[in-house]
Amino acid sequence: MEDYILLGHGNGGKLTAELIETCFLPCFKDPVLNTLQDQALLEIENHRIAFTTDSFVVDPLFFPGGDIGKLAVCGTVNDLAVGGAVPRFLSVGFIIEENFPLEDLKKIARSFSRAADTAQVRIVTADTKVVEKGACDKLFINTSGIGTINEGIDFGSHKVAEGDAIILSGDIGDHGIAILSSRKGIAFETSVTSDCAPLNLLVHEMLPYAASIHAMRDPTRGGLGTILNEIVQQSGFGITVYEDALPLKEEVRGICELLGLDPLYLANEGKLIACVHPDGAKELLSAMKKNPLGKDACIIGHVTKEPPKKVVMETRVGGSRFIDMLVAEDLPRIC
Amino acid sequence: MEDYILLGHGNGGKLTAELIETCFLPCFKDPVLNTLQDQALLEIENHRIAFTTDSFVVDPLFFPGGDIGKLAVCGTVNDLAVGGAVPRFLSVGFIIEENFPLEDLKKIARSFSRAADTAQVRIVTADTKVVEKGACDKLFINTSGIGTINEGIDFGSHKVAEGDAIILSGDIGDHGIAILSSRKGIAFETSVTSDCAPLNLLVHEMLPYAASIHAMRDPTRGGLGTILNEIVQQSGFGITVYEDALPLKEEVRGICELLGLDPLYLANEGKLIACVHPDGAKELLSAMKKNPLGKDACIIGHVTKEPPKKVVMETRVGGSRFIDMLVAEDLPRIC
Repeated sequence: MEDYILLGHGNGGKLTAELIETCFLPCFKDPVLNTLQDQALLEIENHRIAFTTDSFVVDPLFFPGGDIGKLAVCGTVNDLAVGGAVPRFLSVGFIIEENFPLEDLKKIARSFSRAADTAQVRIVTADTKVVEKGACDKLFINTSGIGTINEGIDFGSHKVAEGDAIILSGDIGDHGIAILSSRKGIAFETSVTSDCAPLNLLVHEMLPYAASIHAMRDPTRGGLGTILNEIVQQSGFGITVYEDALPLKEEVRGICELLGLDPLYLANEGKLIACVHPDGAKELLSAMKKNPLGKDACIIGHVTKEPPKKVVMETRVGGSRFIDMLVAEDLPRIC
Repeated sequence: MEDYILLGHGNGGKLTAELIETCFLPCFKDPVLNTLQDQALLEIENHRIAFTTDSFVVDPLFFPGGDIGKLAVCGTVNDLAVGGAVPRFLSVGFIIEENFPLEDLKKIARSFSRAADTAQVRIVTADTKVVEKGACDKLFINTSGIGTINEGIDFGSHKVAEGDAIILSGDIGDHGIAILSSRKGIAFETSVTSDCAPLNLLVHEMLPYAASIHAMRDPTRGGLGTILNEIVQQSGFGITVYEDALPLKEEVRGICELLGLDPLYLANEGKLIACVHPDGAKELLSAMKKNPLGKDACIIGHVTKEPPKKVVMETRVGGSRFIDMLVAEDLPRIC
């Protein structure tokens, strides 16, 4: 491993996994942390809760479809929701650069608050730090969250089984393209906006079918390609995805072709995937379509026995290729 | 209010209070957040929990008596403990500057882990972000925490009453002086080290006497002067402190005189104050002295009816002066 932290150590892909493996896990030896999920499942006096944390360093702070405030709420709420929890309480910690415009801070706080209202979570504790000019780039936010887990809910890679359908809730890559299009120095015109949205109300529609749901994740940093790899690594099974079935806006496809980006590694902030028992997939899809965030939900692949721990894509032209985790940093500070 | 964020907005004093009042509270309208305590007291299925968040931006990362990792655990654990909660679970979010030495990151992670072991809390969920060189100053950490609150515990400024004794657990100003002594550009030689320590085991000794304890706080950013002002603002009473009674190392006193600093506004990271019914003060002091962190505990003042909402110091020479909240930024990035 390198002696210095690289941007890639923060991209949610291979280098991040390596950093966690070699630096953090040997120090923080906790069985819950070791599960490497995006949320900790805990028990307090016989009640199950989920606990999660995320720092947001997105650049720019304001982008088509949202801003860092909305993103911070959605990111944290979604990590709770895909763990099967009902998000209840949020904390917010601001790190602000000296001279930051108060008007922008108010805009971000309002947006944070609006997103929390939409997601029906309460902002209950906060912290503010200010650092001197040059010591941070404008504003960072940390949002931690607590959710409660209803009885009978148990999602996780350990439950994934051969034959499971992989359901994706909608188009991929919108958040990545929206950030890219508004990034200083490389900005371009597009109608694509971030998909940044709280998923807990969609998950609420899915929970009655929880018995069929084996695992649920949100493909954020590192994109769909990385999250599918995490599932195969953790479950030991393989996954085959069908390129034809991947929902993708024409405009996103075009921009990716133009810029040489792979939509499989673009970040999403309002999408989830579920590994579902094949018998329950149809019913679950109908339930998901009741929520606007699930109206384009579809089956994009299946869990296979072979090849173990590999993600394979059946391409449009009839070939197949392995899909690896994100390695190089395509786009830092996406969230 | 200013149109731009100043360093003073982060010092925990008057400007921070103003920022919270004018920017955050109007957006984040939650009755629990509105109590403006360092921890949120929540109910989950009839169980009371405490939830808190803190970002740490201390400069330098390594200082006499600790580092940002130890500090992050202590700061968060202490916010839970002074709320009367038993700290149980921590999250940790790293924001790392590209090129940060991996060896230093490991050192900090180990120190974070050791402090969590000492405080008997579990690190259960984590997040890592990396930003490009120049986008943050080396490393920031956010630590959020969850604690459980035993039955019958109810601390808060609303319970503070005339005649309450103000107990302080030990010497003030050590953390502030330790940071100052190691700060680039102004470093000086001193044997003073940060008091940075988890207070929950001290609080554990105090909880059997919880019925006498009306309020408990830790005087961190903004120091003792600021925290006493928060208590009088929130309770409506006055507080008189006796300069003679203030525990202060000779060396800290000397450095303060030399540099023109007021120890009342220096940060502490391993001290607490309690407002205690006068009949219970002696017993509580004996209990506190059983823990090494409470061996120098003493009564430094009393709650008075007059003057309302003011902190008065009876000086060594027999005069008296008002103690205000911290206004100007004495020392940014103290925690």
